[in-house]
Amino acid sequence: MIEIERKFLVTSDAFKKEATSKTFIIQGFLNTHPERTVRVRAVGKKGILTVKGKSSEDGTTRFEWETEIPLEEAKKLLQLCEKGIIEKYRHEVSFAKNLFEIDEFLGDNAGLVLAEIELNEVNQTFKKPSWLGEEVTGDIKYYNSQISKNPFKNW
Amino acid sequence: MIEIERKFLVTSDAFKKEATSKTFIIQGFLNTHPERTVRVRAVGKKGILTVKGKSSEDGTTRFEWETEIPLEEAKKLLQLCEKGIIEKYRHEVSFAKNLFEIDEFLGDNAGLVLAEIELNEVNQTFKKPSWLGEEVTGDIKYYNSQISKNPFKNW
Repeated sequence: MIEIERKFLVTSDAFKKEATSKTFIIQGFLNTHPERTVRVRAVGKKGILTVKGKSSEDGTTRFEWETEIPLEEAKKLLQLCEKGIIEKYRHEVSFAKNLFEIDEFLGDNAGLVLAEIELNEVNQTFKKPSWLGEEVTGDIKYYNSQISKNPFKNW
Repeated sequence: MIEIERKFLVTSDAFKKEATSKTFIIQGFLNTHPERTVRVRAVGKKGILTVKGKSSEDGTTRFEWETEIPLEEAKKLLQLCEKGIIEKYRHEVSFAKNLFEIDEFLGDNAGLVLAEIELNEVNQTFKKPSWLGEEVTGDIKYYNSQISKNPFKNW
């Protein structure tokens, strides 16, 4: 499928009061090539393998394919991944009928908080919550595949 | 799991008379890094995604993880793969209670025929059929991930 996403910095912790879920995620990459990233995730009790294609020029659309795998298998694959395993909390917040996924990074990326909204159409408008800051859609520095290689503490 | 395999050149077509199956395989790689290859296959009506780790020094053992996926999804992932999609026939031959998998490559690799035998132990002995030639276990040139980048016609 093709995914349409926009990504923003988060300017305060205010989103935490509105969050409906908080999930711990460990993730690594078997491949961080911009044309075909292969991601392994341990998300709560699930394992997830995701392949993403190249982003469109404006960074909003991208081929994405995902399959669930047993958690134990995901953990073995995480051991094979490139250096730079990412740990983060994923918070979900509903705001004006839209779902925001907010990643609060840990470890070498502590202090970095990013929000993503998935849209049905590229030009779809949506209401912005007060804690939503600057848009960073398409800025490669904020891709998880790049964060894993160049963590926030080095920025 | 850890896989123990040995690989050989095939010196004649004689194996074809003994083959119990012949399957057309299209395969590509999302990643050809020797420490973590990610392979996509369309095998008959199935899709298969495989992750392999680094080989042991003698080339016989290697971490391998595999999952079946829908054929249509495999075909989409093949479009994302690195250049050098491989097409081949996989023949299966039982000989003296061992299974040999014989790859007859097509296209840019026509003329290359390789046999693999999977073993339970590194030092396990087995009977060699007459058509089995030189051993090439651990020779990186014969890895499918390398063949896809440097096809047989260029050797």
